[in-house]
Amino acid sequence: MAQALHMGDELHNRNRAATSLLFRLLAPAVIRTASSAESAAQALEFLHGNDHFFLNLSMAAAKATLDAARDARRSSIVVAMARNGVDFGIQLAGLGQTWFTGPAPVPDALFFPGYGKQDANPDIGDSAITETCGLGGFALAAAPAIVQLVGGAASDALRYTRQMYEITAGENPAYRIPALDFRGAPTGIDVRKVMERNLFPVIDTGVAHKKPGIGQVGAGILRAPAKPFRDALAGLARALPEPSGDPKETA
Amino acid sequence: MAQALHMGDELHNRNRAATSLLFRLLAPAVIRTASSAESAAQALEFLHGNDHFFLNLSMAAAKATLDAARDARRSSIVVAMARNGVDFGIQLAGLGQTWFTGPAPVPDALFFPGYGKQDANPDIGDSAITETCGLGGFALAAAPAIVQLVGGAASDALRYTRQMYEITAGENPAYRIPALDFRGAPTGIDVRKVMERNLFPVIDTGVAHKKPGIGQVGAGILRAPAKPFRDALAGLARALPEPSGDPKETA
Repeated sequence: MAQALHMGDELHNRNRAATSLLFRLLAPAVIRTASSAESAAQALEFLHGNDHFFLNLSMAAAKATLDAARDARRSSIVVAMARNGVDFGIQLAGLGQTWFTGPAPVPDALFFPGYGKQDANPDIGDSAITETCGLGGFALAAAPAIVQLVGGAASDALRYTRQMYEITAGENPAYRIPALDFRGAPTGIDVRKVMERNLFPVIDTGVAHKKPGIGQVGAGILRAPAKPFRDALAGLARALPEPSGDPKETA
Repeated sequence: MAQALHMGDELHNRNRAATSLLFRLLAPAVIRTASSAESAAQALEFLHGNDHFFLNLSMAAAKATLDAARDARRSSIVVAMARNGVDFGIQLAGLGQTWFTGPAPVPDALFFPGYGKQDANPDIGDSAITETCGLGGFALAAAPAIVQLVGGAASDALRYTRQMYEITAGENPAYRIPALDFRGAPTGIDVRKVMERNLFPVIDTGVAHKKPGIGQVGAGILRAPAKPFRDALAGLARALPEPSGDPKETA
């Protein structure tokens, strides 16, 4: 994944490099273990046919990374963002399994030919776990070519990533962005910074048709909605012990 | 090659994406035609083991492209740049097989551990045909991660490509650079612009040890030397017919 960020992927909506690198690693093992040459060739053709193949792995890697941060006492860091087509929900490291939710927005997107915003379902899917881990919309600066898929200019990609440093706690020492002189990807969304700056996570996402069975009809950039973050910050404040300081200081 | 420019390659010193894309295309055919599964696996492992594999193809593609421009009457466009470790030579589209040469410079480079500029041979190799075709140093803006290999900052990569627009005749409609909002790579070095601006082609190159058998000891950025371009422009002037205009205009 670190290499793929040097090769134009952001590992949410663009996974061509990571899929290619994985293909190179798997091919000899597939050949040596397949029941026949033809089945090996077909398995690799399947993998070759989908540049998004690696998304399955980048989501899992992001989830595993963030789960390691769960149950950090009093922590205001977001460990999950997910959407189910109706609600957008987040969880904080310091608040266990509690979900804070709000209505999922309908993405502004570049729609595939024949489709438009009237066809779009509200934001849906688990893939925003990549943004939660500093990839996807947070790493757009690594993937300027993605604007052909999601809209905007290459300078927008840089701008979005630079913004995300304002709402995150750290920079990933492994996931580095060449165009920002190898600065680490902005990582660890801090709900306090989000609300203080009124600046919400950037998600670059696929758009599903609102009718089941049709599938993806576009791709675009959207902002996470405010309500889950506002509620999560309030929930964190309620969970903290009462201040026990000098009354003069709290007056 | 167009895809690889969207994936961080400049197709001279960085070919990881193009090698990966080629690997994906070749693998099923290798599997179906190899004499055994083991020989297919070993062939693909050989390809996987060298991220520069595609350089052999990008050089050939550049050479074929430029040869199509040869013998354009009176043309000042450079159709070949090459170095043999002693001399640096260029050919113009309008001057047939004539080489214009000058001493090859010794590259300033990032040297591999244990080596330094005292070990470096003067610039050597056919690979500057990629720069002649708008790739390599001319397309550095597509490959910000390459500065880890050749030195400098990501902003230098942008700067070098922007400079090369000043000495080229056109922009490649297929080879586009995402970070420059998909502007075509600067293509067709015009010896008149080179001498008018005193601005010489940027080449990002491997550095060979001056003793045979040791091989590559570094990589870096260098400028083509002035003499071949100065001589080529003079050669072009000599080859043009005498002006036959009104004496008043030439007075």
